[in-house]
Amino acid sequence: MRTKAAVALEAGKPMEIMEVNLDGPKAGEVLVEIKATGLCHTDDFTLSGADPEGAFPAILGHEGAGVVLEVGEGVTSLEPGDHVIPLYTPECRECEYCLNPKTNLCQAVRATQGQGVMPDGTSRFSMLDGTPILHYMGCSTFANHTVMPEIALAKVRKDAPFDKICYIGCGVTTGIGAVINTAKVEIGSNAIVFGLGGIGLNVIQGLRLAGANQIVGVDLNDDKAEMARHFGMTDFVNPKKVDGDIVAHLVELTGGGGDYTFDATGNVTVMRQALESAHKGWGESIIIGVAGAGQEIATRPFQLVTGRVWRGTAFGGARGRTDVPKIVDWYMDGKIEIDPMITHTLTLDEINKGFDMMHAGESIRSVVVY
Amino acid sequence: MRTKAAVALEAGKPMEIMEVNLDGPKAGEVLVEIKATGLCHTDDFTLSGADPEGAFPAILGHEGAGVVLEVGEGVTSLEPGDHVIPLYTPECRECEYCLNPKTNLCQAVRATQGQGVMPDGTSRFSMLDGTPILHYMGCSTFANHTVMPEIALAKVRKDAPFDKICYIGCGVTTGIGAVINTAKVEIGSNAIVFGLGGIGLNVIQGLRLAGANQIVGVDLNDDKAEMARHFGMTDFVNPKKVDGDIVAHLVELTGGGGDYTFDATGNVTVMRQALESAHKGWGESIIIGVAGAGQEIATRPFQLVTGRVWRGTAFGGARGRTDVPKIVDWYMDGKIEIDPMITHTLTLDEINKGFDMMHAGESIRSVVVY
Repeated sequence: MRTKAAVALEAGKPMEIMEVNLDGPKAGEVLVEIKATGLCHTDDFTLSGADPEGAFPAILGHEGAGVVLEVGEGVTSLEPGDHVIPLYTPECRECEYCLNPKTNLCQAVRATQGQGVMPDGTSRFSMLDGTPILHYMGCSTFANHTVMPEIALAKVRKDAPFDKICYIGCGVTTGIGAVINTAKVEIGSNAIVFGLGGIGLNVIQGLRLAGANQIVGVDLNDDKAEMARHFGMTDFVNPKKVDGDIVAHLVELTGGGGDYTFDATGNVTVMRQALESAHKGWGESIIIGVAGAGQEIATRPFQLVTGRVWRGTAFGGARGRTDVPKIVDWYMDGKIEIDPMITHTLTLDEINKGFDMMHAGESIRSVVVY
Repeated sequence: MRTKAAVALEAGKPMEIMEVNLDGPKAGEVLVEIKATGLCHTDDFTLSGADPEGAFPAILGHEGAGVVLEVGEGVTSLEPGDHVIPLYTPECRECEYCLNPKTNLCQAVRATQGQGVMPDGTSRFSMLDGTPILHYMGCSTFANHTVMPEIALAKVRKDAPFDKICYIGCGVTTGIGAVINTAKVEIGSNAIVFGLGGIGLNVIQGLRLAGANQIVGVDLNDDKAEMARHFGMTDFVNPKKVDGDIVAHLVELTGGGGDYTFDATGNVTVMRQALESAHKGWGESIIIGVAGAGQEIATRPFQLVTGRVWRGTAFGGARGRTDVPKIVDWYMDGKIEIDPMITHTLTLDEINKGFDMMHAGESIRSVVVY
């Protein structure tokens, strides 16, 4: 079949909107009509060329929602008409990782996914001249139709709006999951969140959901405070307006440091501040942001020997097929909010404009609706 | 009263054995006759001058065992004749830290202990000319008699030999506790231990006690392997004899990395290797060693985002008054061994020779018996 896609032809250039060929699903695969997709910083990171593993031409996008159109041989958990959210972290429920309760990093299709192809080693996408186009993070939601492994699709309820729940495919789950699955924040905890963008706001609403007491937000931009307060932030700190050391300021503000601190900036200097503003004896710091290639985090080992713990999280520690449908329920039940974070809705033809707004800091989340 | 002590008069010089004055115990304090004391690298670190918080003159030593001679006003948990192990990490059971099950870092006397004085701000030790001598880590076991806060003494059974259980005051508890309290190693885990000195050997026997499966020991000195095997090591790796990357070698040897890895070297480069040889998805790395002043650990944040956890431990996460008596029982019941690790027994007059042997790598543990 043919479908319409935004194709990243090379690093550092705007994507081109074009018709592409899409082969049907092979065994274990599913053809999905993407109804909506969010624009995430990770797409931008790869498009920019900064991602050392980025390869082109590719169809980016990994934060989508859609409808199953056709299933390949052997697919048993999905059928045409099912509503689904694509998972860049699949859940096979059979590999060593899926069977270990400490991790969500299913390895079933990791090698081929990293190479931009389906598990059989080939791509379903191609240019109209036959040149293969790579998949991206196993999802490629910047195409109106895509093919994905069955294990990389979460089946969700049919009454949930695609243009909102697509955000659960990455940002919402990453932020809320970092709190609930990775940090396992207890009721009454104090927390500090560095970076009040799309991920940071979801960390904050995750903390509210988990019953945190003090929720301190840290951002260089005062304009971020209002929305963060809406989601549950109790204290705002702009490091530019703090005299002296930001870590000492945060430790004092929280009465000894955060029980949990979260980096949602991707900045390695901030990651260190997040660790060091965690409470002596028990504070845990969670790295969510993705740092630039080759960048390193550092601290004195004394910070760890005196009881701080340094962790990271990918996709919020969520097991997608199990957890994503629950988060969709939480949204539909009003336990969490998504609508205020989706600041712009675009057509696929306007997708490059969406990334321009991201760069300008004008959007929290832009969503393309097909 | 007067007692005999090894006094560290200044950094970088041998200690001098001399008579000193010792005032009796004030309220909440206890006079202890030290019967035996181990010589630990931490004493050496301070004596060398490398410890930025080291102050002189001081009576070092923190790994002791002895008998209560006299108790100060208000002391209720101890009486003369009790056998005790001094605790450089006390356990008041009342402070915010003691009441938080996630930490053992009791803060009750921390400020004064760090300054080398008792909780009332003064020292009990002085030169015969009246010049005050500082306490060290709240213990000063390099004196035949010492005064300590009640909350810094673990009461232990009377049939346990002082010249062996003194080692439980630091090295044994630190190594075994890192496994049991900090890492919480599960039966069947794979582990890697970097550094097969006094701490590393105790990590290894802790792993055996915890039912670990594969226990890999890493040391630059082949001569360390035999003793480590005695304590439970299953595989020995000498990095000097590995072609290529030590981390890749260890990951392959353990089938994906250690479920738990331990640094018992104090070398920040090794700490990084320990983290990076932990298993993707769930491996935890525990820093036990004390690094030099100002040194930093570093890694790429990707190591944490893909599921590794970086922790540290102090005194093996043990709550001394509660846990140390249990470890003494384990020794007396034959669950753990101490005797083979105590390679040299000295008199107090020979204490500087003990540190010379430590520097030369000739001893695992030297113990001074009074």
